[in-house]
Amino acid sequence: MSKNKSFLSLPTEGQGAVLGDNNPAQSKKSRVTTMERALVRRLLQILNKPAIAIVLWDGEPVTESTATDLIRMEIRDRGALYKLLSHPNLNFGDLYSIGRIEIDGDLLAFLKMIYVAAADSKKISFLKKYVSDLINKPRTNSLRGSKDHINHHYDLGNDFYDLWLDQEYLQYTCAYFPDPEMSLEAAQKAKMEHVCRKLQLKSGETVVEAGCGWGGLARYMARHYNVQVRSYNISHQQILYARERAKQEGLDHLIEYVEDDYRNISGSYDVFVSVGMLEHVGKQNFRELGEVMHRCLKEDGRGLIHSIGRNKPQLMNAWIEKRIFPGGYTPSIGEMMDIFEYRNFSVQDVENLRLHYAKTLEHWSQRFEENANTVEDMYDAHFVRAWRLYLNGSIAAFSTGTLQLFQIMFTRPRKHDLPWSREHIYK
Amino acid sequence: MSKNKSFLSLPTEGQGAVLGDNNPAQSKKSRVTTMERALVRRLLQILNKPAIAIVLWDGEPVTESTATDLIRMEIRDRGALYKLLSHPNLNFGDLYSIGRIEIDGDLLAFLKMIYVAAADSKKISFLKKYVSDLINKPRTNSLRGSKDHINHHYDLGNDFYDLWLDQEYLQYTCAYFPDPEMSLEAAQKAKMEHVCRKLQLKSGETVVEAGCGWGGLARYMARHYNVQVRSYNISHQQILYARERAKQEGLDHLIEYVEDDYRNISGSYDVFVSVGMLEHVGKQNFRELGEVMHRCLKEDGRGLIHSIGRNKPQLMNAWIEKRIFPGGYTPSIGEMMDIFEYRNFSVQDVENLRLHYAKTLEHWSQRFEENANTVEDMYDAHFVRAWRLYLNGSIAAFSTGTLQLFQIMFTRPRKHDLPWSREHIYK
Repeated sequence: MSKNKSFLSLPTEGQGAVLGDNNPAQSKKSRVTTMERALVRRLLQILNKPAIAIVLWDGEPVTESTATDLIRMEIRDRGALYKLLSHPNLNFGDLYSIGRIEIDGDLLAFLKMIYVAAADSKKISFLKKYVSDLINKPRTNSLRGSKDHINHHYDLGNDFYDLWLDQEYLQYTCAYFPDPEMSLEAAQKAKMEHVCRKLQLKSGETVVEAGCGWGGLARYMARHYNVQVRSYNISHQQILYARERAKQEGLDHLIEYVEDDYRNISGSYDVFVSVGMLEHVGKQNFRELGEVMHRCLKEDGRGLIHSIGRNKPQLMNAWIEKRIFPGGYTPSIGEMMDIFEYRNFSVQDVENLRLHYAKTLEHWSQRFEENANTVEDMYDAHFVRAWRLYLNGSIAAFSTGTLQLFQIMFTRPRKHDLPWSREHIYK
Repeated sequence: MSKNKSFLSLPTEGQGAVLGDNNPAQSKKSRVTTMERALVRRLLQILNKPAIAIVLWDGEPVTESTATDLIRMEIRDRGALYKLLSHPNLNFGDLYSIGRIEIDGDLLAFLKMIYVAAADSKKISFLKKYVSDLINKPRTNSLRGSKDHINHHYDLGNDFYDLWLDQEYLQYTCAYFPDPEMSLEAAQKAKMEHVCRKLQLKSGETVVEAGCGWGGLARYMARHYNVQVRSYNISHQQILYARERAKQEGLDHLIEYVEDDYRNISGSYDVFVSVGMLEHVGKQNFRELGEVMHRCLKEDGRGLIHSIGRNKPQLMNAWIEKRIFPGGYTPSIGEMMDIFEYRNFSVQDVENLRLHYAKTLEHWSQRFEENANTVEDMYDAHFVRAWRLYLNGSIAAFSTGTLQLFQIMFTRPRKHDLPWSREHIYK
């Protein structure tokens, strides 16, 4: 397998100029000034004095905590410190990925502490908003832009995702763990079943899917509910995989995978479903998504959108938006309502599955680490570190309550044959 | 029982000046002009030609429908026609209440037709928005204003509501019919049980309730879950009734009914609950309600708000706002998020119980009609007609999808011991 580094065009140690700082090798030898140490203390104070020791390039730890069990964060050169201070959200990820910052201890515990501190710190919230507004303007997702953004992430190679996703349905979205001890494979099937029950799928109905990943949900629906599914996706590699797999499993007469943008959905359907695509849509396109649903849903149609969200409007973490999900945005429920309100869709059910995503990510992270050597062979060590940070950062975000996962089930306003309770979902 | 007409200060037939029009008795005798007949035709066209015949004061029906089974709407004098045309949302209710407009046939079927037509007509939506913005500015709900508004409706007399609400808990809010055939009494208990299960009440916990009506939910919670409840209400008559009833049932050691505004809630609680009060809060006060919740909920607290709502932002029906619920506003989910987002509350579950409210209102309407003579003795015939219109109009609004009923369950952001599924609600 050829090395594929296009995902992260990260600066290496010898490429300090990319990050615009001094030669890191040189700065390692230089003394840490009193002012630099004071800056680090100030940073720890803003973070409410977490149980962290910051070890600068002279080997001396700085801490504001009285705890005995400190996690050590090593900042290995002067340039790294100033990059971190200038835009922590963005540069921490890059610096960690290339090893100019190292966490000596439990990375996940460290990230959880940072998430909690950031949420609690009024100074950080202000700073984040100010800096975010200046630097992290959400990118537009034009038809062309979306394709670039999606290729960036999903065309990394099916072999890569196959290493750590569930084996049967390759679901790269939050699973559902009604029993937290169940396997990832069982929980991904439980998620798809949960979605189908909320939608009350009936044999012979037509379903349109916006963003289908490797086609797993379409196969599940076709196999277990005998529905006709038309699934849209702009990731070429995913579509090829999905078509091949449906054919192998004898489901291709029920499923059509269309390599196209959700905005080009045509036809008329009983059900609209979108699991894990809204994060890529961008809030400036929510009303247009509502128009697509309006165009393609029958008069008594119903639908479900499953997406990462927030308790309140907040920009994406800058590093995630830059390196992992370009064009991504995780909206609050209030923001999501832009999709539904203009065309008078009626929201029937919203469920928050936050802890289920933390659990899903723990499974992914464990499998990823079991295959870290293979991933390093496929890409390189920086890629492994970046991906490790992304997975652990996501666990931290969901488990501390920084991110949410919403399933929103909706209908047309005049759909009157609604179930009298949600008990049918749990039978 | 003394006659109480303060609720509706409606103009009578002899008081045409109140509605600012000509003497209705005189206008009855005058000819209907060609222009007036054309105006009525235009009105029916705007309404998409419903199966309605409008009968003017000369006895001649006007219709645009080709249906054979027409509902007849009689406009009994010229002044009534012009009042209706000048502000239909507001004046239809008054004119119907005093008998200058009569519906000859099924009132509910007529109202449903009007609701559907109004929702579908682009001209009406535009007109409504324009007229609403000018005339129907939402009133502010200051501490004093709220008390006046609430007295207007809820201090009509406990005896009146006792005639047609469920007998055990006097719930003047949407019931829950997991089986649509169950009795109103059973469905109101099912509603309270549903709320308690969503909140996962545990024995010994503390609950604060914002707006408690006649105190039924507090009694249910204390009786079945052994929790300490503190319930706020600014309706004097309701508070007196609630205290007396809790004492009779030996629950007063667990419940404190406080005659005060929700904004004055003090103390610290495990659970916040508010069933059917948000409609009276007004959207300009949503953030302040969030502040109240923030102040009174413990760090791992949880809560539930149950309220009438909309698929999209829309002003109250002008007549309902003027005559029935002054200061009332029924928000969309997007608007409701103002309560939660600023203080980072985490919405866990939203359920839409629209059809349950239509069913509840059908029960109320039936009982009301069975007691119409008694109500007329207590008030007068206009009161009965106004109330009949309000109940049937509400059935029409919920059953056609103009109004929704949302239950929103939420927690503090760091509440991590959440159930792994909602199955516990259905056991």
